[in-house]
Amino acid sequence: MAAVSQQGSAAVESYAAPAAPMGDLYPYAARKRLTAAEATGADGQVVELAWEDGSRTRLHALMLRDSCPCRRCRDAYTLERTLDQLAYPLEVAPERLSLRDDGTLEIRWSGDGHVSRYEAGWLEAEGRIDNAAGQRQIAFWGGGDGSALPSYDYGAILADPSAALAWLESLRDLGIAYVTGAPDSREALETLIDHVAFIRRTNFGTVFDVEAQIDTISNAYTAVALPLHTDLTNREYQPGYQLLHCLVNEAAGGESTYADGFRIAERLRREDAEAYRLLTTVPVVFRYHDRDYDYEHARPVLGLGKDGAVAEVRFNASLMRGFEAPVEESAACYRAYRRFLELTRDPAIQVKRRMRPGEIACMDNRRVMHGRAAFEPTTGKRHLRGAYMEREEVLSRIRVLRRIAA
Amino acid sequence: MAAVSQQGSAAVESYAAPAAPMGDLYPYAARKRLTAAEATGADGQVVELAWEDGSRTRLHALMLRDSCPCRRCRDAYTLERTLDQLAYPLEVAPERLSLRDDGTLEIRWSGDGHVSRYEAGWLEAEGRIDNAAGQRQIAFWGGGDGSALPSYDYGAILADPSAALAWLESLRDLGIAYVTGAPDSREALETLIDHVAFIRRTNFGTVFDVEAQIDTISNAYTAVALPLHTDLTNREYQPGYQLLHCLVNEAAGGESTYADGFRIAERLRREDAEAYRLLTTVPVVFRYHDRDYDYEHARPVLGLGKDGAVAEVRFNASLMRGFEAPVEESAACYRAYRRFLELTRDPAIQVKRRMRPGEIACMDNRRVMHGRAAFEPTTGKRHLRGAYMEREEVLSRIRVLRRIAA
Repeated sequence: MAAVSQQGSAAVESYAAPAAPMGDLYPYAARKRLTAAEATGADGQVVELAWEDGSRTRLHALMLRDSCPCRRCRDAYTLERTLDQLAYPLEVAPERLSLRDDGTLEIRWSGDGHVSRYEAGWLEAEGRIDNAAGQRQIAFWGGGDGSALPSYDYGAILADPSAALAWLESLRDLGIAYVTGAPDSREALETLIDHVAFIRRTNFGTVFDVEAQIDTISNAYTAVALPLHTDLTNREYQPGYQLLHCLVNEAAGGESTYADGFRIAERLRREDAEAYRLLTTVPVVFRYHDRDYDYEHARPVLGLGKDGAVAEVRFNASLMRGFEAPVEESAACYRAYRRFLELTRDPAIQVKRRMRPGEIACMDNRRVMHGRAAFEPTTGKRHLRGAYMEREEVLSRIRVLRRIAA
Repeated sequence: MAAVSQQGSAAVESYAAPAAPMGDLYPYAARKRLTAAEATGADGQVVELAWEDGSRTRLHALMLRDSCPCRRCRDAYTLERTLDQLAYPLEVAPERLSLRDDGTLEIRWSGDGHVSRYEAGWLEAEGRIDNAAGQRQIAFWGGGDGSALPSYDYGAILADPSAALAWLESLRDLGIAYVTGAPDSREALETLIDHVAFIRRTNFGTVFDVEAQIDTISNAYTAVALPLHTDLTNREYQPGYQLLHCLVNEAAGGESTYADGFRIAERLRREDAEAYRLLTTVPVVFRYHDRDYDYEHARPVLGLGKDGAVAEVRFNASLMRGFEAPVEESAACYRAYRRFLELTRDPAIQVKRRMRPGEIACMDNRRVMHGRAAFEPTTGKRHLRGAYMEREEVLSRIRVLRRIAA
């Protein structure tokens, strides 16, 4: 890599004001020093950076010019791009690269003559553009009485950002966690969710009461057993997390059950490749309708993410209509579906745990299936309150809490 | 097709009660008479139905058994499945098929001996399982002053279900519509949305005020020009519809602009296949962060639906970070992106229209890009109120309103 000048021009016309502080809200602080920068490639559009630890980063001139942080190219307060993305030529390339004493990289661009300055920490972060913040560290679990599942104290979550962060990271990585010590009040659940995210409003309301009722609109509001399922599979955007706050649980029966859908999917992938193929590709039609609402959506039981791994499970016997497939493929689809269903009942997979008042069971509703045994409403009251919050709200909160924790 | 008996057994043990009225909430009313039913296929699992108009329907025994509407298999009130989906054998097949005098089909099943009765209208609907209700009839538009865009009266929508239906079907098919005659009140927008759907809450609140501010958190809340964009491209679930209610528009400038993203995508597909391929496959990283929130999401500019057609557009210069692609592919990606950007400025595509007080501009935010010219806040006030509602809420409401209209 060729040497570059170690100091850029002192006064640059296009810098009417100092560069916007792109790093002020994000850990862009330089963790290492930039030692060299060079324009390479046939068109001179690949910027190669060398760092003091010997590592290198390659960034494209178009991305760099497009991301210029100066006050002409971004709003000084919102930091959002104001640059017209057609205002610089497609052939834009560095005319001069300079490492400045303050650790920034200055580039003078061919074509429009604009000058940009980039913080080293930002350049480093851009070099990892495919490593988005908030990546999950998926860990499987299952079997037993659920006593090994992590618990977090309600009061600590509200008072201590690091306790909130630990709870949310558990939810992200395990997909399940308990909150204990919640107040015996109708508002406790809303207070907890409002502290870190928003409640997702659905046709069932914001916070919904799960009690035995007659003439009701969902099997959840009866006393019958609910086989393991995820909620609202009939919605394009299946809710990300469900939280169930136990206020009273005096009725005989009604034990809660859980299963890690990602773990089941992984077992299926290894043991029955054809079933896995069908469940990841053939859409299942799910539908819910009552007098006021009528939602229908078709999506495979297992949704794959960009990395090819399972990112979402949709499994709900109450709402399943059938497979969106020719009649010739029906038998194979139902066979695959039943294989998955059998695995949900494997004692090595299923967790059984009775909810106690003051507990809030928190589940990734796009991963973890939940259910309950039938209960006998004449033996005592059973009252849970439930609500949903979204995955992307949780990831946002994790990023913000990490700034504080970092 | 072999003849079947025209009357099933009079009393069937497994029918403890009449079949649940599956048709009571949906247009399952039989539109034609069933004339014959037969079990075919190597396993006898394909049920072939013949209709009086000569048409035929093929349904699989597993789907039919799984969908039995009797009170053992479904909850009598919620109509949701209570049948254990492992309780009948995978080899289940009709042992006897009977057309009953009331127009229903009765099937006695091998294996568990269960008897199911199906309404003809339901059987007909199941035969069209890949024709989901609420299909869109996409129509392209563009160019000119927007005077040809459909308008609906605020009061009529609130008073008349058929007016509400017409408005929502316009939004579904064109992706854009105006509501006129809205009251000059801060609550008018919320009242309209609550009438048909829910407001989607985001980090910008429920209803947000679009006015020129200083020290603000988004370019939308300044007086600068906003190039054509869709909102919240940085969210996994990009809001479905945006509604903007104009309360005051006295400032010079600030004309609204719109473009039909589906139309641009279609032009790109025809004129520049490589650009279309890149924009439908390479994710773009979008990010928004402020003191309290930090959302990042990567998705291609053009998202394809199950049918291979473009179902979603994500285009936002303010929030775009860069392409999630190797540096070697950057130049091709930016070239494709700029081709799309150029098309948004084509006068045959772009619509320009000044908002008037009392108007609510309603756009499919996953299809239609919107923008505004810069305005001069010293020349007068400009105040819009905005909110989001979701595509799936609109589709649900269309289905419910159609029951009334039908």
